[in-house]
Amino acid sequence: MAQQERAIRTRKVVLDAAGAVFAEQGYSATTIAEILKRAGVTKGALYFHFPSKQDLARGVIEQAVTEPPREEELILQSFVDMGLELAYRLPREPVLRGAARLAADQGAPDFFGTPWPQWAYRGEQLLNKAKAQGEVLPHVDAAVTSRLLVGSFTGLQLVAQSEAGAESFQELVSRLYDHVLPAVALPGVLMQLDTSVERGALLAERKPHKQEAMS
Amino acid sequence: MAQQERAIRTRKVVLDAAGAVFAEQGYSATTIAEILKRAGVTKGALYFHFPSKQDLARGVIEQAVTEPPREEELILQSFVDMGLELAYRLPREPVLRGAARLAADQGAPDFFGTPWPQWAYRGEQLLNKAKAQGEVLPHVDAAVTSRLLVGSFTGLQLVAQSEAGAESFQELVSRLYDHVLPAVALPGVLMQLDTSVERGALLAERKPHKQEAMS
Repeated sequence: MAQQERAIRTRKVVLDAAGAVFAEQGYSATTIAEILKRAGVTKGALYFHFPSKQDLARGVIEQAVTEPPREEELILQSFVDMGLELAYRLPREPVLRGAARLAADQGAPDFFGTPWPQWAYRGEQLLNKAKAQGEVLPHVDAAVTSRLLVGSFTGLQLVAQSEAGAESFQELVSRLYDHVLPAVALPGVLMQLDTSVERGALLAERKPHKQEAMS
Repeated sequence: MAQQERAIRTRKVVLDAAGAVFAEQGYSATTIAEILKRAGVTKGALYFHFPSKQDLARGVIEQAVTEPPREEELILQSFVDMGLELAYRLPREPVLRGAARLAADQGAPDFFGTPWPQWAYRGEQLLNKAKAQGEVLPHVDAAVTSRLLVGSFTGLQLVAQSEAGAESFQELVSRLYDHVLPAVALPGVLMQLDTSVERGALLAERKPHKQEAMS
């Protein structure tokens, strides 16, 4: 394996381990020693990529802003797809779980940010594009609607985690779109949008995602 | 002051102090010593009401489930009022801030619960009543819609906290209702609902709430 390729792989292994430990323990209780143990890399390798716990948290947050969704014929479908795919992947990928936990760790985000502004900005761009294509009701403010969805998504994850046996997180996100889209989409567009839970899995599987470490 | 009255007052002072400290520091970093200092009561008085930190957290959570909103002619207005009033009061009242932080403290709610199930249940009851009065679209599932709103409310609070200068929490909650109600209310009812930010303040002020400790 070429040196550069090895470095990329190490970085990925470390971020997966860091994501898993942050997700389980939160920022303040996490130790670099635990991440090292989980990643199974040398101390030198870890510190080469991430000189501090704060850098590890930043790395996890940055990694959690995934590639944009594929453009569908209806741009509003791409907007919905962002959330459906993330709701499917979040419980399954340590980096995403870690980022979600870090973002909800009050106080701590001052040190390493959250993925929220990027997620919200991406949604805003899609909504504006959808508006330009005439898919969106005229009074919709793309920035506000996108922030609302990012915030709601985050809260639903917390509520779903805390209540075993209730609707799953994925189910709640799908219902969130059903509730919000009538206030966003033109009626003719609304009818064509797929907000089903199953779509999240299809989207996640058709993309060649990086291999995920078991955790 | 009669003994019982003094006991009620002490309990309230302790819960306000506990709410403020939990809100600032989260569950695990909070110490009873800090709450004692903030409350300015004796150790004996505090332990009489709350034998452990876990009991303090439970007390804060229970206290955060406030009295139901006044019944309006449209029951859907009462449903909206719950959230508008809470969004106004939450940043202003230590017990509510503490409960919100505790609920979002992952892992910790296993020890002391969250106010979410009660909030969701109260919303569900109102929605069912509104349905019986013919205010609600026929396909609405009261339990799901209420849980969605509780989860979204929680997430919006986190997002609003993390972004200074953006829309306030109250503003976001008001916009949340604007987005969700078209999927819930019959069109003729929808037109009559007041989701304005100002309504939250009016609701909070017309009720005789307990005096809040400064914190």
